[in-house]
Amino acid sequence: MCPDTQARTTKSSRLTAPFVVDSSEAEILRALRRQGKISRTEISNITGWSKAKSSQEIRSLLNKKYLVEVGEGASQGGRRPQLLKINDKLGYIAAIDMGATSLDTALAELNGRIIQRKSEIADVRAKPEELLARCIELVRQMIQEQGCRTDEILGIGVGVPGPVDFARGVLVAPPLMPHWENFRIRDFMKEAFPSAYVVVDNDVNIMALGEQRTGDGTDIDHFIFVKIGTGVGAGIISNGRIHRGSDGCAGDIGHICVDKQGPICRCGNRGCLEAMAAGPPILERALTAAQSGSGPYLVKFYEANGGTLRLEDVNAACREGDEAALEIIRASGQMVGDVLAGLVNFFNPSHIFIGGGISNFGNHFLVAIRRAVLRRSLPLATTHLSINFSRAGSDAGIIGAIALASNYLFIVEDDPHLMIV
Amino acid sequence: MCPDTQARTTKSSRLTAPFVVDSSEAEILRALRRQGKISRTEISNITGWSKAKSSQEIRSLLNKKYLVEVGEGASQGGRRPQLLKINDKLGYIAAIDMGATSLDTALAELNGRIIQRKSEIADVRAKPEELLARCIELVRQMIQEQGCRTDEILGIGVGVPGPVDFARGVLVAPPLMPHWENFRIRDFMKEAFPSAYVVVDNDVNIMALGEQRTGDGTDIDHFIFVKIGTGVGAGIISNGRIHRGSDGCAGDIGHICVDKQGPICRCGNRGCLEAMAAGPPILERALTAAQSGSGPYLVKFYEANGGTLRLEDVNAACREGDEAALEIIRASGQMVGDVLAGLVNFFNPSHIFIGGGISNFGNHFLVAIRRAVLRRSLPLATTHLSINFSRAGSDAGIIGAIALASNYLFIVEDDPHLMIV
Repeated sequence: MCPDTQARTTKSSRLTAPFVVDSSEAEILRALRRQGKISRTEISNITGWSKAKSSQEIRSLLNKKYLVEVGEGASQGGRRPQLLKINDKLGYIAAIDMGATSLDTALAELNGRIIQRKSEIADVRAKPEELLARCIELVRQMIQEQGCRTDEILGIGVGVPGPVDFARGVLVAPPLMPHWENFRIRDFMKEAFPSAYVVVDNDVNIMALGEQRTGDGTDIDHFIFVKIGTGVGAGIISNGRIHRGSDGCAGDIGHICVDKQGPICRCGNRGCLEAMAAGPPILERALTAAQSGSGPYLVKFYEANGGTLRLEDVNAACREGDEAALEIIRASGQMVGDVLAGLVNFFNPSHIFIGGGISNFGNHFLVAIRRAVLRRSLPLATTHLSINFSRAGSDAGIIGAIALASNYLFIVEDDPHLMIV
Repeated sequence: MCPDTQARTTKSSRLTAPFVVDSSEAEILRALRRQGKISRTEISNITGWSKAKSSQEIRSLLNKKYLVEVGEGASQGGRRPQLLKINDKLGYIAAIDMGATSLDTALAELNGRIIQRKSEIADVRAKPEELLARCIELVRQMIQEQGCRTDEILGIGVGVPGPVDFARGVLVAPPLMPHWENFRIRDFMKEAFPSAYVVVDNDVNIMALGEQRTGDGTDIDHFIFVKIGTGVGAGIISNGRIHRGSDGCAGDIGHICVDKQGPICRCGNRGCLEAMAAGPPILERALTAAQSGSGPYLVKFYEANGGTLRLEDVNAACREGDEAALEIIRASGQMVGDVLAGLVNFFNPSHIFIGGGISNFGNHFLVAIRRAVLRRSLPLATTHLSINFSRAGSDAGIIGAIALASNYLFIVEDDPHLMIV
């Protein structure tokens, strides 16, 4: 299952990524990662190499078992061409998506296909050693249940709900996870899975990556993924790549100002988007409405729950047409839209995807966002703009964690910084 | 001066960029563009090729005269290595930077060194044929005065003050230039300079490129260049590359909302940054102050000018310590800073550079911007953030237009989309 282990292990200890290739081999692998299966002729066309040079490089990759031949493509007049693809049997990828209250894990093939998933309830405020030990245990269970070996895990993608210093793989000043400050997640995981390359990123970035891997396969070069739940954050794709920014904290849009006279946010400023439009302020407004008797369904759920409300109740009230609940949701959507309008002018994305707990609120929420963006953004930036709920839905995180890990499987020899992404 | 013209012209008619190379040659050229001069050993190290393969590719580029050998580098113990660089004598680059009221043009070597500049006053509201004919005339004069030939002009970079559809090289709904809508700038220039590859971009994008080429040479991966004059716009560099967005109109930050109750902007919305903090509203506030007798120096300049004020007067009043003028400038800086604070949270740049007419306002303006950003942005995003006036100053546009053109000199054979940028 894991050929060339000897060579791999020796080199990886020096160069970190599981597989080392030269720059010509890298070109072929890049083309295959983009296109899945292609013929030798197509590889010649893409690289611009002679047939002889192409054949030689392909043979080298076949010998190392990084590539395999798979069936035949459509004939272009002559013999049907043999297709090539990256060898999915080289090993496996593990993915971990940590939420504020849950752990999602998955085991996947190198091509991204999920083989098994395991989730459990967890409290992210726990100590990192405890939570990561649970993650390791879940991954080990899947390895065992699938009959594979620990040293076949070649990559692990980890998403965490907080600001990540991507280069170091640690959380920096994470509000939800005080114990995690500077904890070396990568080293901890690497100890349990020494053959794997471990990559850590924040939850919204991996959701954006997951979104990129979902849908009809057409590449979207510039989009923003907005997660709205307890907090608000964005994952940014620029020129097809994650934009992490200079300190790795790009996308922290929850503290953009909506109203200078608004309520004080936990960050100390007034009127932040998060303090005005995320889950908690929505709940607070719904509670006030129910307590003052406005909104028949809000009142009904409030009384049925013994004097409390959950986001699901507000959602259900909306579905029943409760005007007070609808007004709260529309107001939240409009504030989100006001902030997005500015970001659309600045960034000019072709798509905005909305995900997270609040995406359950449905079309009223979406329409309010769209209306605010259309009103305040420039025509050129909105003519082709699409604003929709995430296509990947609640799977965005786990799909993205797999994608993240699979971006770091191959490294170019003599240039340890040049991963094949 | 222009070797290999035959091969070049034949190929360029099909593939547009002046010089066609294969993907291996492209790797060497990329390394040389980044580093200027390097040795053969360094090329082997960067590409990961064998000495034999490196030698062969370098020989091919030397034969085509795309590379030349230049002097010797420092010895690493043995013989001093011969250094290689891109052949600056292949031809020239012309640059055009169109402002609302002026034309700046330059003739430069391929390495970016400016040989000559010519500027004149112009009104950008004129017909495109007229204005571009002036540009062509200025470039022709420089060609003649420098004793070079028209067919040695290999690239032309054009900056225009309006939203550009970059792929088509035309302005789209340009507020300052109504006659230019969809006018084919690229074709018009190409007719006068058939050997040149013509690239058109908006003025702020080229200023950002110019900024990237200025300074101490250290690469800045993520920065925002903000131009404040009659309007407000931004040029965005993400992962070292211009981020133009999905429709090429990224950076249009002049219409981000500062105050929902603010004055109506020419775009139809209320309280846009441009309507509140750019040159015209500053002047308007200064006039009101002078007319009501507040600000001794504003009053003095107002009277000396026969009942009008120019931005220079407001600037001069600030320098004299006129409190009314200072207050107006500080207020403008704060509004710019409030908008930038949100963009810093979203984009996490390491640098913000301020350019355009208002950058003459000096430190009071800069301090107000910095203060607003620090107050509203998140600590992680501001710890290493630097906010300063453009280092390139008023040359940013012309340096950027040269850089833009020089990004499109080489194209990879069989992949017409893969310019060496």
